[in-house]
Amino acid sequence: MALIVQKYGGSSVANAKKILRVAQRVIKTKRAGHKVVVVVSAMGDMTDDLIALAGQINKNPEEREMDMLLSTGEQVSIALLAMAVHKLGHQAVSFTGPQVGIITDEFHSKARIQNVSAERIKKALGDGKIVIVAGFQGQTPSGEITTLGRGGSDLTAVALAVALKAKHCEIYTDVDGIYTADPRVIPEARKMSVATYDEILELASLGAKVMHSRSIEVGKKFNMPIRVRNSHKDVQGTLITKENKKMEEVVVSGVALAEDEAKITLFRVSDRPGVAAKVFQTLADANVNVDMIIQNKTQTNSTDISFTVLKHELTKALKTVKAAMKKVGATSITCDENIAKVSVVGIGMRSHSGIASKMFSTLAKHKINIDMISTSEIKISVVVAGDKGRLAARAIHRAFGLDKK
Amino acid sequence: MALIVQKYGGSSVANAKKILRVAQRVIKTKRAGHKVVVVVSAMGDMTDDLIALAGQINKNPEEREMDMLLSTGEQVSIALLAMAVHKLGHQAVSFTGPQVGIITDEFHSKARIQNVSAERIKKALGDGKIVIVAGFQGQTPSGEITTLGRGGSDLTAVALAVALKAKHCEIYTDVDGIYTADPRVIPEARKMSVATYDEILELASLGAKVMHSRSIEVGKKFNMPIRVRNSHKDVQGTLITKENKKMEEVVVSGVALAEDEAKITLFRVSDRPGVAAKVFQTLADANVNVDMIIQNKTQTNSTDISFTVLKHELTKALKTVKAAMKKVGATSITCDENIAKVSVVGIGMRSHSGIASKMFSTLAKHKINIDMISTSEIKISVVVAGDKGRLAARAIHRAFGLDKK
Repeated sequence: MALIVQKYGGSSVANAKKILRVAQRVIKTKRAGHKVVVVVSAMGDMTDDLIALAGQINKNPEEREMDMLLSTGEQVSIALLAMAVHKLGHQAVSFTGPQVGIITDEFHSKARIQNVSAERIKKALGDGKIVIVAGFQGQTPSGEITTLGRGGSDLTAVALAVALKAKHCEIYTDVDGIYTADPRVIPEARKMSVATYDEILELASLGAKVMHSRSIEVGKKFNMPIRVRNSHKDVQGTLITKENKKMEEVVVSGVALAEDEAKITLFRVSDRPGVAAKVFQTLADANVNVDMIIQNKTQTNSTDISFTVLKHELTKALKTVKAAMKKVGATSITCDENIAKVSVVGIGMRSHSGIASKMFSTLAKHKINIDMISTSEIKISVVVAGDKGRLAARAIHRAFGLDKK
Repeated sequence: MALIVQKYGGSSVANAKKILRVAQRVIKTKRAGHKVVVVVSAMGDMTDDLIALAGQINKNPEEREMDMLLSTGEQVSIALLAMAVHKLGHQAVSFTGPQVGIITDEFHSKARIQNVSAERIKKALGDGKIVIVAGFQGQTPSGEITTLGRGGSDLTAVALAVALKAKHCEIYTDVDGIYTADPRVIPEARKMSVATYDEILELASLGAKVMHSRSIEVGKKFNMPIRVRNSHKDVQGTLITKENKKMEEVVVSGVALAEDEAKITLFRVSDRPGVAAKVFQTLADANVNVDMIIQNKTQTNSTDISFTVLKHELTKALKTVKAAMKKVGATSITCDENIAKVSVVGIGMRSHSGIASKMFSTLAKHKINIDMISTSEIKISVVVAGDKGRLAARAIHRAFGLDKK
């Protein structure tokens, strides 16, 4: 008998019928002899509806009150799922985040979990009950209701799995698992049966939109296996776990395409220590996220610096950098919104050589010019022309054999 | 500067526009120099919608889970009202019932308040904030969410007013105040400017549908003045308070009509001590509420007993009583659904005579036969034929001059 934490997203509990289906799935796990803790999100569009309602009253609502409002969404789901389990003849009990001791810091709308006591869950499991917990929410030590921000329900599930020493944490979604690439971009993308935390972290941050990185980070930190599965089908999903020998044999595990970035280049920045830092500190102060940074010294006493930012932050980024140009001695600035970033990720890269040259020669064969290159231990990213992104991603995906079993 | 508790019902906060209007009203009170605590119900039909949603999943949901579900309704309202107050440029903070220490017993769906600490409210008021509290809800000492049942939000408001030593508690509704009779039945009914707790308690229990008796009882116990006012108009409502000399001059303050009762008669019940008790204990065990009870000894060794129950409990009542007939020696049983109960209420009755005779002669003048009579210190009730109820109520209302200022 194992303890398993399962998480169901908003689309899995969007109406009464779907809630009853989730209840059946939960009961099946219980019947297989396991202790089950279920984390649920708000029903379908409920969160969006509540946000729209708030917008009718106040365009800039206080985050504390938004948390008060939005946390009701998950509370509705847990009560209904408990009723569904009862209806099917099994014992269940629902708890809010605050009730099970999910303690967070005080940053409303994006709180971080500080501690999970889970005493009430343990007691209810001991009584033979299926325990249903509201995702996405917690409370501060002084009793203020908080929400955890994007990917919050996944985070609740993984954090509870860690606190309860679960065998693993199952994340149920609309897809069969995590793919070697986005199937909407690369139809021949295949489901990965296994991946490491680091690979998924790189894929998530590269725009593969799988799971939010915060929950993967917690999984990695506490070595909690995470299974991503389809809530509508009974198929094996993707297991996210720590690396093992066998996994290193797979050189590249996925390809990611990001089309939401823009490139900024500052020309002839003074080549003195601390100058680059000044540019990026200014951007950080303006709350602009910078992704790739390339610096290449081509002249004496000065250098060009290029970096990418999210397109929707481009205007803010340009304004910020222009204001700082004089301080860093730059002579001019350009930007390019027509770019795409293609990345290959794989822990096998560390022990295999030739990945970069294979990637670059594939691009050359397709006459795709490389604009920027950036590498980390387990990934290589290139920036190419925006209209070449999809072609590049697909060619690279094929070149590394990701379309074959 | 006084502390005032205001309560707004579901129809007063049914949409964004109405919530902003309530916010204006609350701010007006704050601007007049008062400390304001606001209690709100769930928006319009939200509670009914949630009940319907639960019904799609489980026809007999556990009461604990219904409380978990329904308590979200008020939580949505408090967050939105706080946002509305912020929007209008004032400080406000919302709290759930559990957050402000409303501690109840463990009877889900009809919990009774055991204690109110209200420390967080006092602190927030001290910080100059308008405090907004979710009505209808609390938590048990062990942290289970409970709801207070019918009239629960009124009860929250009065209990908070008592705990905070408020100057008075204002209950905002859709009507101008409490009337001498139901205006839908007696169009010439007038608004009372003042009434005693006892009068309103009698009127409420007699079917005048004004405020739930639980909150009036708490108001009476702690001598907390309650003002019933119209949330849409700026008119004086009805003040419910303890009695004073002047009030005794008004002999009859209201007339109530109840058309939802049925009469049961048991014939030739053994006339021994404890027999009547047996009948009503059986009904109590079956959870049937009995209203009027009349016993009249007309034979030797036996007596007839008549009593009234709510029509929708008649079937259950008949079944229960029939099963107990032998035990009490009764020979037969009849029932009558075509009855109406008309009552006059007024604390002045205690010091004035002739009320009963005036009531009975008024009925005689209109050729209305009296079937049952029951009296208490401040009320007289009669049962008449069902189709004569409205005529009787109206005639009595006029006879006591309630239609005139």
